[in-house]
Amino acid sequence: MFNFSLTIKGADTAGRLGKITTSHGDIRTPVFMPVGTQATVKTLSPEDLDAIGAEIILSNTYHLFLRPGHELIREFGGLHRFMNWQRPVLTDSGGFQVFSLADLRKVTDEGVTFQSHIDGGAKHVITPEYAVEIQEALGADIIMAFDECIPYPATRDYAQESLERTHRWAKRCREAKKDTGQALFGIVQGGMYPDLRRQSAEALVDIGFDGYAVGGLSVGETKPLMYEMLEATVPHLPQHLPRYLMGVGTPEDLVEGVDRGIDMFDCVMPTRNARNGTFFTSFGKLVIRNSRYERDKDPIDPACGCSTCRDFSRAYLRHLFNAGEVLALRLGTIHNLFFYLNLMRDIRSSIEHGQFKEFKKEFLAKRGQEE
Amino acid sequence: MFNFSLTIKGADTAGRLGKITTSHGDIRTPVFMPVGTQATVKTLSPEDLDAIGAEIILSNTYHLFLRPGHELIREFGGLHRFMNWQRPVLTDSGGFQVFSLADLRKVTDEGVTFQSHIDGGAKHVITPEYAVEIQEALGADIIMAFDECIPYPATRDYAQESLERTHRWAKRCREAKKDTGQALFGIVQGGMYPDLRRQSAEALVDIGFDGYAVGGLSVGETKPLMYEMLEATVPHLPQHLPRYLMGVGTPEDLVEGVDRGIDMFDCVMPTRNARNGTFFTSFGKLVIRNSRYERDKDPIDPACGCSTCRDFSRAYLRHLFNAGEVLALRLGTIHNLFFYLNLMRDIRSSIEHGQFKEFKKEFLAKRGQEE
Repeated sequence: MFNFSLTIKGADTAGRLGKITTSHGDIRTPVFMPVGTQATVKTLSPEDLDAIGAEIILSNTYHLFLRPGHELIREFGGLHRFMNWQRPVLTDSGGFQVFSLADLRKVTDEGVTFQSHIDGGAKHVITPEYAVEIQEALGADIIMAFDECIPYPATRDYAQESLERTHRWAKRCREAKKDTGQALFGIVQGGMYPDLRRQSAEALVDIGFDGYAVGGLSVGETKPLMYEMLEATVPHLPQHLPRYLMGVGTPEDLVEGVDRGIDMFDCVMPTRNARNGTFFTSFGKLVIRNSRYERDKDPIDPACGCSTCRDFSRAYLRHLFNAGEVLALRLGTIHNLFFYLNLMRDIRSSIEHGQFKEFKKEFLAKRGQEE
Repeated sequence: MFNFSLTIKGADTAGRLGKITTSHGDIRTPVFMPVGTQATVKTLSPEDLDAIGAEIILSNTYHLFLRPGHELIREFGGLHRFMNWQRPVLTDSGGFQVFSLADLRKVTDEGVTFQSHIDGGAKHVITPEYAVEIQEALGADIIMAFDECIPYPATRDYAQESLERTHRWAKRCREAKKDTGQALFGIVQGGMYPDLRRQSAEALVDIGFDGYAVGGLSVGETKPLMYEMLEATVPHLPQHLPRYLMGVGTPEDLVEGVDRGIDMFDCVMPTRNARNGTFFTSFGKLVIRNSRYERDKDPIDPACGCSTCRDFSRAYLRHLFNAGEVLALRLGTIHNLFFYLNLMRDIRSSIEHGQFKEFKKEFLAKRGQEE
């Protein structure tokens, strides 16, 4: 089961409020999806995710295909049961990881041949049809078409050639997909060429998907260029279907993305930064190992309502990080994800009240110290 | 505030039921204390500890003295507030760690000079008086006298000489202790010499403590020898005060210890084993990385009531360990500590019903496969 209903179109922004309905529950959009690469959002239990208000998580097909294997997860009745997470899941197609993590890739029209980063010796082939089959075994509520994610910068010729292959693959994914009740999203590519982005959006809409993702961004380009690519893409996607900006980004990127009509985001930034002791706050980033926090009795962010900020001081967290204690990673992850999810709540509320632009202005001003 | 009341003397065992009262709440004995070396029971939050029923935890003076420093913790109002744990805490004296972890020790009657295992360059001196002062700053409900823990095997001459020093130190600790409301326990030493053990117990009772620990066991000796030393010690300790067997042990050791009149235990075994993927169960140890669990849908122990066994399969836990996921450490720790705490509940219940010996026999028989 999959449905997207647009509930409010922003008064002062291309941003909008919507609701995705799945057999594992509803998702209010715009939404941020915590990343659970290996069938776990690193350091957190499903209970923790519930407590911070996560409505959907993303898991990575490439990693699960390699370990523990999609057939094992199929035996358990899919990812939800395997990891005991009862809310919606989205799986990516494995394309991005094949291109960024695997060795000895060979890309042909048929698919991609690679050696994994885990079992270095073993050779694997993923075709569009196989990517769909794997994701059907994993059983996510939303699955993604298999695409080629090109490096940045890329020549126009290569971007064009790759794009056409990605479109042929998208069509094969669409045709291979069985009637599983899972939604299938297409992925717009086209490098940093606005006309290719438009061409890609239109080609995918012609094939017809349940939603559309914007891929291949936040790969090294400047922020203005990323936003330009969004503006070259989103207007060519259907209003009545969800739009997902893959692998993005900073809190600022989320606000800018929503303003340009994006409904869904995922990124490892809040979880990865947390494990490095870098926390997002209402006043910018906070690096907990900094000696200024040695005797600091305040929580990470006095304005934050997460359980970490309720229960623990900066000094205690700094001690845990310095002592190499695993609890530090979980407490930090809870805070950073809560910050992201709370930001999305604030964004939704501002759209609901027709005050998104005002919210955006204040938000960006407060975070002036950032980085 | 500290009080120990003996509620039931075992009908068929030297084991007994008691209650320790502190200003941070009551502790039912016999009790197992999870080890929170660096002001955290590794991988767990205070909420997790509450959920598995921990009534008291142990923290290590040596580690906290070095990092973050006892003066910092004093500023926070003590360990309870620093780590946000509202129930009782016991701190050891630092003696054992100075002798097992530090470098370049020099033991004199005055105290011990050492270089820490953390800030290799810095030289520290801990005297009995300073050990008490540090523990007063940490603010635990129960603190320990500073003792010398001798290696095994040790000559009788060395054991005797060390023992006499430990007694002089115990007396100085007793005299140094301020009126903080904290309980101070003495530590019986004496190596593997029954007459020295008795001598030590009597000397400490003469000084007078709020409770008595048996130290220097589980240091490499055989189980029968450890039990023999317990039997040489416990009868010479007061009936009306708690007896604490330090750093012990396996589930079997806990049962054997209680049977010989021990009220309190601590050990890193359940937490450390959990982080290595070795779990305690009602049918013996289970090594989760074993390939036989690859597709196993059962929980670690079908007879266990912990949240890990309620929510997750062996196959999922095995996947988390193989994938190096931090969540594995916490889920395993929850299970192993729950097993230990539940064992203590079962032990208390069997004493209450006058059926300890029967319980012990069945427990040991079921775990025949162990190691």
